[in-house]
Amino acid sequence: MASLKSCFRHSVASGALRSYVAEFISTFLFVFAAVGATMASGKTTMDAGRDSSSLVAIAVASAFSLSVAVYISANVSGGHVNPAVTFGMAVGGHISIPMAIFYWIAQMLGSVVACLLLKITTVGQEMTGFGASILEGVMTFSLVYTVYASADPRRGAMGAIGPLAIGLIAGANILASGPFTGGSMNPACSFGAAVIGGSFKNQAVYWVGPLIGAAIAGILYDNVVFPTQVPDSLRGISDGVGV
Amino acid sequence: MASLKSCFRHSVASGALRSYVAEFISTFLFVFAAVGATMASGKTTMDAGRDSSSLVAIAVASAFSLSVAVYISANVSGGHVNPAVTFGMAVGGHISIPMAIFYWIAQMLGSVVACLLLKITTVGQEMTGFGASILEGVMTFSLVYTVYASADPRRGAMGAIGPLAIGLIAGANILASGPFTGGSMNPACSFGAAVIGGSFKNQAVYWVGPLIGAAIAGILYDNVVFPTQVPDSLRGISDGVGV
Amino acid sequence: MASLKSCFRHSVASGALRSYVAEFISTFLFVFAAVGATMASGKTTMDAGRDSSSLVAIAVASAFSLSVAVYISANVSGGHVNPAVTFGMAVGGHISIPMAIFYWIAQMLGSVVACLLLKITTVGQEMTGFGASILEGVMTFSLVYTVYASADPRRGAMGAIGPLAIGLIAGANILASGPFTGGSMNPACSFGAAVIGGSFKNQAVYWVGPLIGAAIAGILYDNVVFPTQVPDSLRGISDGVGV
Amino acid sequence: MASLKSCFRHSVASGALRSYVAEFISTFLFVFAAVGATMASGKTTMDAGRDSSSLVAIAVASAFSLSVAVYISANVSGGHVNPAVTFGMAVGGHISIPMAIFYWIAQMLGSVVACLLLKITTVGQEMTGFGASILEGVMTFSLVYTVYASADPRRGAMGAIGPLAIGLIAGANILASGPFTGGSMNPACSFGAAVIGGSFKNQAVYWVGPLIGAAIAGILYDNVVFPTQVPDSLRGISDGVGV
Repeated sequence: MASLKSCFRHSVASGALRSYVAEFISTFLFVFAAVGATMASGKTTMDAGRDSSSLVAIAVASAFSLSVAVYISANVSGGHVNPAVTFGMAVGGHISIPMAIFYWIAQMLGSVVACLLLKITTVGQEMTGFGASILEGVMTFSLVYTVYASADPRRGAMGAIGPLAIGLIAGANILASGPFTGGSMNPACSFGAAVIGGSFKNQAVYWVGPLIGAAIAGILYDNVVFPTQVPDSLRGISDGVGV
Repeated sequence: MASLKSCFRHSVASGALRSYVAEFISTFLFVFAAVGATMASGKTTMDAGRDSSSLVAIAVASAFSLSVAVYISANVSGGHVNPAVTFGMAVGGHISIPMAIFYWIAQMLGSVVACLLLKITTVGQEMTGFGASILEGVMTFSLVYTVYASADPRRGAMGAIGPLAIGLIAGANILASGPFTGGSMNPACSFGAAVIGGSFKNQAVYWVGPLIGAAIAGILYDNVVFPTQVPDSLRGISDGVGV
Repeated sequence: MASLKSCFRHSVASGALRSYVAEFISTFLFVFAAVGATMASGKTTMDAGRDSSSLVAIAVASAFSLSVAVYISANVSGGHVNPAVTFGMAVGGHISIPMAIFYWIAQMLGSVVACLLLKITTVGQEMTGFGASILEGVMTFSLVYTVYASADPRRGAMGAIGPLAIGLIAGANILASGPFTGGSMNPACSFGAAVIGGSFKNQAVYWVGPLIGAAIAGILYDNVVFPTQVPDSLRGISDGVGV
Repeated sequence: MASLKSCFRHSVASGALRSYVAEFISTFLFVFAAVGATMASGKTTMDAGRDSSSLVAIAVASAFSLSVAVYISANVSGGHVNPAVTFGMAVGGHISIPMAIFYWIAQMLGSVVACLLLKITTVGQEMTGFGASILEGVMTFSLVYTVYASADPRRGAMGAIGPLAIGLIAGANILASGPFTGGSMNPACSFGAAVIGGSFKNQAVYWVGPLIGAAIAGILYDNVVFPTQVPDSLRGISDGVGV
């Protein structure tokens, strides 16, 4: 009984709570890209998942986003992102049962929220500016969160693949949002295309959403998931320039 | 004669036996994805391997799964996964002839079992729930086995690409199983999609198979292929949270 | 007031100026590939971004080129390549506001120049030899700049993925230029194909542009962005051969 | 004059000669995959390089094979694989002019031989068993050579991406040879498929070529390009098993 109590107390300690948040964010990010890519394919071909190019789109989006989802939570929660993985780890005794249950809840919630968001923003024939802003904002959130994770010196050897992770999440998000907003996540890119194209229609979409998403990512990473004792050193992979 | 005997004794020692198991698992995992992707393309286009998008699907599945197959067995058996590689290593004197022969047997067996499994589960026009469970279970096995391998601190420098390996095996398996089960390997992902879609049909498929596959992966990794003296430290890439 | 002045002085110091150049080059390189791939798809399919294979082309080009863009500027400017990322970093206090503004200007300029170049060289039905030379030259510039970055021993742990970065930028550029010049960036490759094909038409395009682009990349890297105190040691990943 | 002589003497020293061989092999391997993938697309679609899925096939084959080509020669010759890169390095003073000229010759030769081989083996409507054996043998050569390079402990930090390199070269070769031989490079894979399919037609193709290619790769790596003082330690990434 005492053991059960201590076990439960352990699973709601500060470090454990951060693990659940990390699992929620990672599963959200992964499911958003994987299910989004399936929906995007469904919008573009009659029979999604049956023709080879849709299958490649879905597989690449899933592979890229899962790599990143594991990468960004690896040194907090172990990067499970999947109830089956958590179960496999529990069987091997590498995670306690109470914690595993909380992991499952965080993963299920992350998945449901991602699917809900996809449904709301992509429903109907035409995308609204508001829906597009939200989509671009969410994708920029995951991009900037990944940049923060890559720049974190506490990542050790895995820091070496940081630039890859940043590119992969961008690619996965484009596959998820291509037919809806194009998946810019980058105001400079949209601005350059607009200057040359001579049309600034919808520019706001590619600025408002991304800037808000980026700000939330920075605040969440620094203060909630990976609070740091020495914030000034987070500058990370950049070291040539002071602040 | 004595030398031959000693050589044979060497090739059935404990370390050697674990190498054969590792080669069997790795070759199974690779052939499952590579041949599965070819079959999946065959199901989706008239002339598999002749049009560019099928070719991309097969090439990406093979590349991703071979990377992972080599990765997970690299520090036990050297990660050959291929009789030609074993032959090339024997020619250079980097593996003894008796061991090479056992490597070949393990590789052939792994390949035959993978092909047999693909044939059994995908035969017929419609996939049964039982066949789908087995497919999803096998794919989740390879995913969770890769997670265990990535989290293993004995992997040294190669630990850096662990998150990539996990994403790549997921992508390869989706390419192999797309037209059959969709390649979820993740109950949370299937659950989220079901909640939003409002249909829980076939949910069991995405829970039963994966959980069993995950459990087997954990048991096999910890106890057979990579038995560990200090099991508690296997937590691996996660270090912020105790168990 | 004094603080504002010191802050401004800081943001025009030598290290900071190099950061802006690095952000300009990285954003240029990324936007060139990402927007180029979108244009290339537009040229090849009726409704770019709507069919799965165009989407894969655009996503892969963006993913690969963003990874490389971040990689080559990571240890000078932090590898933002995106005003939203810079904003997210400013919100977290990891970059000062004046510096962030200069980052934004560099990123916008890089994007506009890339889009302008794409428009000029690909306008009209047929590509001219001059336009093709410029395209091949620009792409070879980004390839050789990446080679320099990969070979730089100051890159630390990230040196491990240097060969990957070199391959990825080549792939991204091919996706951006495929329908226009084919994206050779390699005179040897064009020469071999010409010898076997028996036609040396347009050979000059694949020599003049690339050689000029390569020379500019080397000069810019060594003297402007990453000036080195010990130039002879830059030989980098090669150590078996003296100069 | 004396300086010119010394310079020339330097560029034919043992280390330099190994560099030229390394550049020849790497350029051969890259051009084989890149030009092969273009030819394979040409065989499968009317207008290669103009539709998105062919473009993806060519770009992925080029990206994967260039990464590997650079990887396997990085710590001998610097991994140029491209006359433009060598020129850019010469401009920066990182390679002497006489050496650069020999690099160019090695690269041009590698490219011409690769193109010649592709033309000879794929000419005509139907592939002969002999041509198929040669194709599979050449591709297995590059695969096993990459395995040797990955297992080499002298590779340092780059050893971390060894398993990736092995998968990437397999993927690139499949894209180059898909419509011709399927790109097996793995007798176990062909054997498993044959057992299940019940047809052992053409099995010899997938054994004879690969085994010969593998043997040549091992001999060349160990004795010519990377001769080793302590051959027994080359076992490399495998350390659990003695020989």
